[in-house]
Amino acid sequence: MPVYRMTIEYDGAPFSGWQIQPGRPTVQGALEEALATALRVPTGIVGAGRTDAGVHARGQVAHFLADPPPGEAGIDTHRLLASLNGLLPDAIAVRALAEAPDGFHARYDARLRRYRYYITTGFRALDRHMRVHIRPEPDFALMQAAADTLLGEHDFDTFCLAQSETKNRVCTLKEARWTRESDAGDACFAITGNRFLHGMVRAIVGTLLEIGHGKRPVEDMARLLARKDRRAAGPSAPAHGLVLEEVAY
Amino acid sequence: MPVYRMTIEYDGAPFSGWQIQPGRPTVQGALEEALATALRVPTGIVGAGRTDAGVHARGQVAHFLADPPPGEAGIDTHRLLASLNGLLPDAIAVRALAEAPDGFHARYDARLRRYRYYITTGFRALDRHMRVHIRPEPDFALMQAAADTLLGEHDFDTFCLAQSETKNRVCTLKEARWTRESDAGDACFAITGNRFLHGMVRAIVGTLLEIGHGKRPVEDMARLLARKDRRAAGPSAPAHGLVLEEVAY
Repeated sequence: MPVYRMTIEYDGAPFSGWQIQPGRPTVQGALEEALATALRVPTGIVGAGRTDAGVHARGQVAHFLADPPPGEAGIDTHRLLASLNGLLPDAIAVRALAEAPDGFHARYDARLRRYRYYITTGFRALDRHMRVHIRPEPDFALMQAAADTLLGEHDFDTFCLAQSETKNRVCTLKEARWTRESDAGDACFAITGNRFLHGMVRAIVGTLLEIGHGKRPVEDMARLLARKDRRAAGPSAPAHGLVLEEVAY
Repeated sequence: MPVYRMTIEYDGAPFSGWQIQPGRPTVQGALEEALATALRVPTGIVGAGRTDAGVHARGQVAHFLADPPPGEAGIDTHRLLASLNGLLPDAIAVRALAEAPDGFHARYDARLRRYRYYITTGFRALDRHMRVHIRPEPDFALMQAAADTLLGEHDFDTFCLAQSETKNRVCTLKEARWTRESDAGDACFAITGNRFLHGMVRAIVGTLLEIGHGKRPVEDMARLLARKDRRAAGPSAPAHGLVLEEVAY
């Protein structure tokens, strides 16, 4: 059965996260429903990663298996892309859709996931749905110094929600970088790794903001990694500042 | 009476435009209401330009006159800025607030207004509230050639809504430039001029898109300027793609 790969953008606000849950609006659920209508056969999809309720994506990746319609040589991906976008709610867009190499798996084959967390210390209205208002201005140099200690391979148990099923909590981070985007107070935190645990980016950002606000010393970050206790870290930063930007294969 | 200058960002979707209208939600109305609460005295404001229903702003400018509160030397602009943003709906943010030189007038003193119109030929979800989906892909070279003929001083009567009260329809355009923002189909049209007539940018964009789609020749743009008949030009492009980016003094 041929395998297809989709790149998906979504506004997380109206959804109870990526993963399908009975009786709740989810991104996966909406996509499977649109695919079932377009292909006229129930079709399951596998996403590269599960995003929590309210978290956005610009570059989520998912795959599905599908036979060509009866009497046709293959799926017309161009037409299917347009049909899906016509069927989906406005808050979800399929940006690209193509046949993938045999055996392609959106989750297992993903090498790197890149997230960005968007904040502003100014007052904003136009992108308020994806940029979190932070006051007072945090010290970006302190937050960067603390973020630097996260690079490389570590057990991120401290930054994983307790109820997570994942046993292996070792992740390798390739990038953890704060960037000032404008002199109007906009900034973002780019974090790239081979994998992320449940709630990990938001726990890291919440802890970095405490460091940036002088509530914790920079050295806390290394100490926290060793603690392996989620309660020792800072609060989860709000979901709506987080965007899954890209999945690399 | 001291004069104060505000820079305002807003999401135009929930409002019937900038200008106050009885019984309708307007940006000016919301700002005057917040100011009256914060200053405890009815306070009128004057904006640099009126934006239509659904049109956004990142850099609208307005002024108001206000006496210091009884017993105080002056208005604490830092505190007023925070109060206003606490009182205003989320769709409006006052980005900056400061005392202006005596006699400052947001409308009469404005030298240049810069708008941008945002489109995408791809499928997008996260910025769907401020980016208009355009299919098929227009020819950007043709649209740029047509836009070039608008530069300089012209009577823009053809691109002004008929019911407009403005008698003088001569405007000077300094910039009219299409930019491809990404290889995912995002693009924007930046247009800067000393003044703009009612509905002018959206009429120009609607006409440029017809040229980009091959429905009109490039030369139509110069011919239309001479026609002085709004019905001869293209349709108004949708309001939600338009952002008043900046007003220069």
